[in-house]
Amino acid sequence: MTPEAVDSRWQLPAIPQSARAALLDERTAAEAAGYGRNIENFIGAVRIPLGLIGPLRVNGLHASGDYYVPMATTEAALIASHSRGARLITEAGGCTTLLLNEGVSRAPGFAFDSIVDAALFVAWATTQMETFRKIASETTRYGRLIDLQITLEGNHVYLGFEFTTGDASGQNMVTIATDAICQYISANAPIHLRYYFVEANLSGDKKATTHSFTTVRGRKVTAEVRLAASLVTSRLHTTTERLMDYWRMSALGGVMSGSIGVQGHYANGLAALFIATGQDAACVAEAAVGVTRFEPLDDGGLYASVTLPNLIVGTVGGGTGLPTQRACLEIMGLAGAGHARALAEVTAAVALAGELSITGALAAGHFTDAHRRLSRGTAPPVRTSASS
Amino acid sequence: MTPEAVDSRWQLPAIPQSARAALLDERTAAEAAGYGRNIENFIGAVRIPLGLIGPLRVNGLHASGDYYVPMATTEAALIASHSRGARLITEAGGCTTLLLNEGVSRAPGFAFDSIVDAALFVAWATTQMETFRKIASETTRYGRLIDLQITLEGNHVYLGFEFTTGDASGQNMVTIATDAICQYISANAPIHLRYYFVEANLSGDKKATTHSFTTVRGRKVTAEVRLAASLVTSRLHTTTERLMDYWRMSALGGVMSGSIGVQGHYANGLAALFIATGQDAACVAEAAVGVTRFEPLDDGGLYASVTLPNLIVGTVGGGTGLPTQRACLEIMGLAGAGHARALAEVTAAVALAGELSITGALAAGHFTDAHRRLSRGTAPPVRTSASS
Amino acid sequence: MTPEAVDSRWQLPAIPQSARAALLDERTAAEAAGYGRNIENFIGAVRIPLGLIGPLRVNGLHASGDYYVPMATTEAALIASHSRGARLITEAGGCTTLLLNEGVSRAPGFAFDSIVDAALFVAWATTQMETFRKIASETTRYGRLIDLQITLEGNHVYLGFEFTTGDASGQNMVTIATDAICQYISANAPIHLRYYFVEANLSGDKKATTHSFTTVRGRKVTAEVRLAASLVTSRLHTTTERLMDYWRMSALGGVMSGSIGVQGHYANGLAALFIATGQDAACVAEAAVGVTRFEPLDDGGLYASVTLPNLIVGTVGGGTGLPTQRACLEIMGLAGAGHARALAEVTAAVALAGELSITGALAAGHFTDAHRRLSRGTAPPVRTSASS
Amino acid sequence: MTPEAVDSRWQLPAIPQSARAALLDERTAAEAAGYGRNIENFIGAVRIPLGLIGPLRVNGLHASGDYYVPMATTEAALIASHSRGARLITEAGGCTTLLLNEGVSRAPGFAFDSIVDAALFVAWATTQMETFRKIASETTRYGRLIDLQITLEGNHVYLGFEFTTGDASGQNMVTIATDAICQYISANAPIHLRYYFVEANLSGDKKATTHSFTTVRGRKVTAEVRLAASLVTSRLHTTTERLMDYWRMSALGGVMSGSIGVQGHYANGLAALFIATGQDAACVAEAAVGVTRFEPLDDGGLYASVTLPNLIVGTVGGGTGLPTQRACLEIMGLAGAGHARALAEVTAAVALAGELSITGALAAGHFTDAHRRLSRGTAPPVRTSASS
Repeated sequence: MTPEAVDSRWQLPAIPQSARAALLDERTAAEAAGYGRNIENFIGAVRIPLGLIGPLRVNGLHASGDYYVPMATTEAALIASHSRGARLITEAGGCTTLLLNEGVSRAPGFAFDSIVDAALFVAWATTQMETFRKIASETTRYGRLIDLQITLEGNHVYLGFEFTTGDASGQNMVTIATDAICQYISANAPIHLRYYFVEANLSGDKKATTHSFTTVRGRKVTAEVRLAASLVTSRLHTTTERLMDYWRMSALGGVMSGSIGVQGHYANGLAALFIATGQDAACVAEAAVGVTRFEPLDDGGLYASVTLPNLIVGTVGGGTGLPTQRACLEIMGLAGAGHARALAEVTAAVALAGELSITGALAAGHFTDAHRRLSRGTAPPVRTSASS
Repeated sequence: MTPEAVDSRWQLPAIPQSARAALLDERTAAEAAGYGRNIENFIGAVRIPLGLIGPLRVNGLHASGDYYVPMATTEAALIASHSRGARLITEAGGCTTLLLNEGVSRAPGFAFDSIVDAALFVAWATTQMETFRKIASETTRYGRLIDLQITLEGNHVYLGFEFTTGDASGQNMVTIATDAICQYISANAPIHLRYYFVEANLSGDKKATTHSFTTVRGRKVTAEVRLAASLVTSRLHTTTERLMDYWRMSALGGVMSGSIGVQGHYANGLAALFIATGQDAACVAEAAVGVTRFEPLDDGGLYASVTLPNLIVGTVGGGTGLPTQRACLEIMGLAGAGHARALAEVTAAVALAGELSITGALAAGHFTDAHRRLSRGTAPPVRTSASS
Repeated sequence: MTPEAVDSRWQLPAIPQSARAALLDERTAAEAAGYGRNIENFIGAVRIPLGLIGPLRVNGLHASGDYYVPMATTEAALIASHSRGARLITEAGGCTTLLLNEGVSRAPGFAFDSIVDAALFVAWATTQMETFRKIASETTRYGRLIDLQITLEGNHVYLGFEFTTGDASGQNMVTIATDAICQYISANAPIHLRYYFVEANLSGDKKATTHSFTTVRGRKVTAEVRLAASLVTSRLHTTTERLMDYWRMSALGGVMSGSIGVQGHYANGLAALFIATGQDAACVAEAAVGVTRFEPLDDGGLYASVTLPNLIVGTVGGGTGLPTQRACLEIMGLAGAGHARALAEVTAAVALAGELSITGALAAGHFTDAHRRLSRGTAPPVRTSASS
Repeated sequence: MTPEAVDSRWQLPAIPQSARAALLDERTAAEAAGYGRNIENFIGAVRIPLGLIGPLRVNGLHASGDYYVPMATTEAALIASHSRGARLITEAGGCTTLLLNEGVSRAPGFAFDSIVDAALFVAWATTQMETFRKIASETTRYGRLIDLQITLEGNHVYLGFEFTTGDASGQNMVTIATDAICQYISANAPIHLRYYFVEANLSGDKKATTHSFTTVRGRKVTAEVRLAASLVTSRLHTTTERLMDYWRMSALGGVMSGSIGVQGHYANGLAALFIATGQDAACVAEAAVGVTRFEPLDDGGLYASVTLPNLIVGTVGGGTGLPTQRACLEIMGLAGAGHARALAEVTAAVALAGELSITGALAAGHFTDAHRRLSRGTAPPVRTSASS
């Protein structure tokens, strides 16, 4: 991160100096010293435009109140759509959110000579849980080993170590703890171990998997809202019946596309929120799965829920302490320790807002219009409660 | 985007003014007028640190030469790992890349009274391809309707309109074209149409799906490299045999996790490259699938390939024209029209670099060390060819 | 199949002679000479009890009329449940069925030195379609090569040869034709071919796959029925609303279980029909996927449809000519050439009958009762229209 | 089952009397009284030819010794192929098998007014485990409730009750037990329950699902064998290297086909064994998933393993007590109580035999020949150790 090292990179052949002017602006240069644990081969910073949605009323176990949520994107209509959904939820009295489960895993794999050896190893490993827990606790203040899942396939054994990670998203934490456990296993297992790897690709890290979807990876949250028929008409310009038609057809469309879960566009809201708040943007790959459900209510209204089992979010560590990212968390009052669960619930609420708005647009036939106007530059003003 | 509107958002209750200072820096404020087609409810910008990897030698159909690739992330070790992989590929003589296929689809859904009506509609629709093509062409200069895939489920019909999109990633383009086609269908279909939606969730938009994985969504690219045994030893500090052990165990780990395809961590490289270059970051959800394959070579070396069928990337449109994002494309010489296919091939090469490096680290037992050092701030210098 | 060979097997040590008496009954022994193309290492026959369901009214493109369908099973309640569904469909005026698509594929895999070679091979192979077709036609009277799907992964190429197979299910036919094509390729491809295999596991043979599910394997059929509210009440003892509640919850249950498609119990009806009619029972693994959809009708009734894309069924070849199996086809008037498409439509209608009955039982709370009574031997008489 | 009822079915219009002669043979008619708990609407029996494979040496936890395995099929080459694999395993010293896990689940679904109610219900349900266990135990002598898995999705709760089922496959047992628990819940839950269904499609019953694949459904078994290089050459007529080439290409072929797990043709062996031994043939749909792995050994030999997590098999109940089916179990010495685990291990060994033989044939280029000869009637004698 020394100025000389940065300079030397900018003097590589064929790199235009205009790029340097754009990317290594004064503010970035001034802040660079604080980026040391977030980047290598540093050359500057990218600026992602930020929009504000809300107010979004969340009646959660951990999140409670009206939130204005900053979201970073370069995609037209994304902010407008989520803001419309957020205000609709608020007008309906807010959404209920519930953190259901927490846990991040690492899955080292161990190879043995035979099935019999593999089974003997499993028998031994299950007796070592207390030791594993102690070893893990010596590597991290916040992480806690809570479960061990065993998968035996022929003479291979995958150990799924599952941790809670406090207010961090926790991927590094669990890697370091698991590595320490693996070293203990390697030194102490009473069975001949041919070789092992600290991660053998069963943890679902950085990818959508049915295993993570059917259990938890990060934090699992569900959110629901009830929309009166009058709100469906006045705000979404459609009817509950048509929304049900849409939900049915799109749920089966998702099934026939071979998606994991069925939902519309969680990735939009998640990516914009993750980038704004210093989350690991690669985790959009694993987080953007879940189930969106619509049901007709007896009074003609609509029940809508989302359930997202793989929200890898934190309020400490990773990029959350960088200046702009921390500022985004502060806008929501969710910066620093003690807020990760609330952030997870707000994230689910944002996903619900996105699903309602986009589904409403599709059901009302407005979906294309919004994208045409906003991306091609002929947009009328978008209202927020602030600007309306 | 007026200063007054921006101001009014910053004056919402409970939003800390320190956040404004961080997010609405001078440069961002100065550029804001140019963000109009990328954001709504604008309040500032997030700065994502940028690192440079390379040189990465690509011997492709569309990309050719030694690339320095800018990647934006807040995750420690990501840049260092990809840079190590890039330099290894270069030292091996470069990787071969090949764009295999292109296409982006929208899948409107149509509901009829009966299976018979649905079938009659399909019979009619298949005769209208030329008309559909003409209608589409009137909405876009660059998009071209190239295929129509029909899925009938009971009395529902999904029409999968597939387009090439020139140098844009093209999602808005295909939405607008499909909407025009739907309006024609709605007005002219000789069968009673109960209702339709311009997107019925069969297109795989913004999510990992087996349908997209087994066809194409965006651009499908494959990349391969051959590493001499001496390079495996000297640069990855392991052996071909151990890499094969890892590949086998991790491929089956992926299978048992229920992932779509089998790979390690495409999402890391994709997210960092997408954010740097103004791609739609939500598309990481769909792009981060594919197949990584390792094979032992007769001479003791390693063959490695990646195949990514869902690269939604472009060099025009979306966020690609914003100042910092365009600068990142310029660093690679890939800004503007004529470069999307090359960008897709470079992206696959970056994914290959990431897979080699991370797999090498796991096989050599260095994976945890790198993350511990770089994220906890005790890192020795990371070499680039520039700084070494 | 000589009596001496059969005898010698029965004289193997430790095999009880009581088993011989049960398995090698007189009728079987008398028929054995006709089993030569269906079994090796012959020792006798297993008797599977056969029940008759119906009448099942089918208003199809290929099947038309009221069918009594023989089904072989050892599972209590299966016949009773399907018969209830069949009679309900008939009372509702019958179901509409539609054969949508046909095709069975083999997918040989070819390995090359490099991606470039693989691409050159693909370029050559696409010019050889007429030759492939001619070669295939010389191996089979009934099979016809209709399509070629190409999948390139690194330096590997999978060629998906798709055939229509007349009235046979056709797996052997397409294997033999594909083998002949592969021999031509091996002798004539102008690119260095490292090795190839006549089937490289991309065809979906004998397993549930999303690839087959999203295209076709065997015959793709959809079936629908409309039940008046009064029928739902009188025959299923529940309401359309409750059936919708069930469908919604069970569709999402299926999604969360990670099934391919969403349905209830196709496998029951398929297995019993396949065994009765001499189909390949192993194909239940691939055939038992699809989509069941329920919708409420404006008049309070229920719309129900099933779509099964992977029905591997035939009326000639395989086990269809064995005495009891042929008799079962004759009961439906579907034995021999000219009837495979009708059999596929009847099969879908049977699946629809099964879904309606079991869903009705679950919604009405009768599911367990039926299983308890019929499997534990306290069953009251089950009505067929014949016995009622 | 009265002769009069059977007669009345055979007198339905348009049913040919020749069919009656084939299906209602004397032996079947004589046995019919014993079919009462296995069939309704009885009209006769289907005869499925039976072949014997072996000897198959199994060194298992529960199965031990050389087995001759009866398999019922109408598909040419199936028996010959499995027998070849069985004898190869035996010649290699036998395969090791290991029963890893057991459990069959039912997953009732419960609907509440809100997420909060759903969560309160979950909190209550988790306190009732002892009561649930007691209720379950009153409905069955053999089944035992061992686990409860909770899935909350919006205001819906799925309770996954998992049971061991003794020597039965157990599906009826767990349904009846779960129904009793549901009635208790319905009467006693302190939360307003809108409605529930005793099975809400999360249990994986009768279909391939990633949930069952990643846990257990029925019995989970793994089996392995080591083949010396000389055996690969002499018996499979290929080399370890070529088998590895095949495994790699076919594993990725399976991945790209979107299968659940990766394997070749488990369904063939499972269907034939299930039909022979009175298992529920519909369960082939769920059982035919798993992982086949090949590895090269240092001495040039081949390591091969199969892991099947969803073997729904039993030796009591269902069709296992019918005359021919029981005789098939007796041939293996596995009839009646105390043998279900051994049967599961033998089943995995049969799957391993099938994989080795078919893979060998594909690698050696003999696959098509075998099918051509055996299905088209020009086959030379197939050896068993008995007849050779």
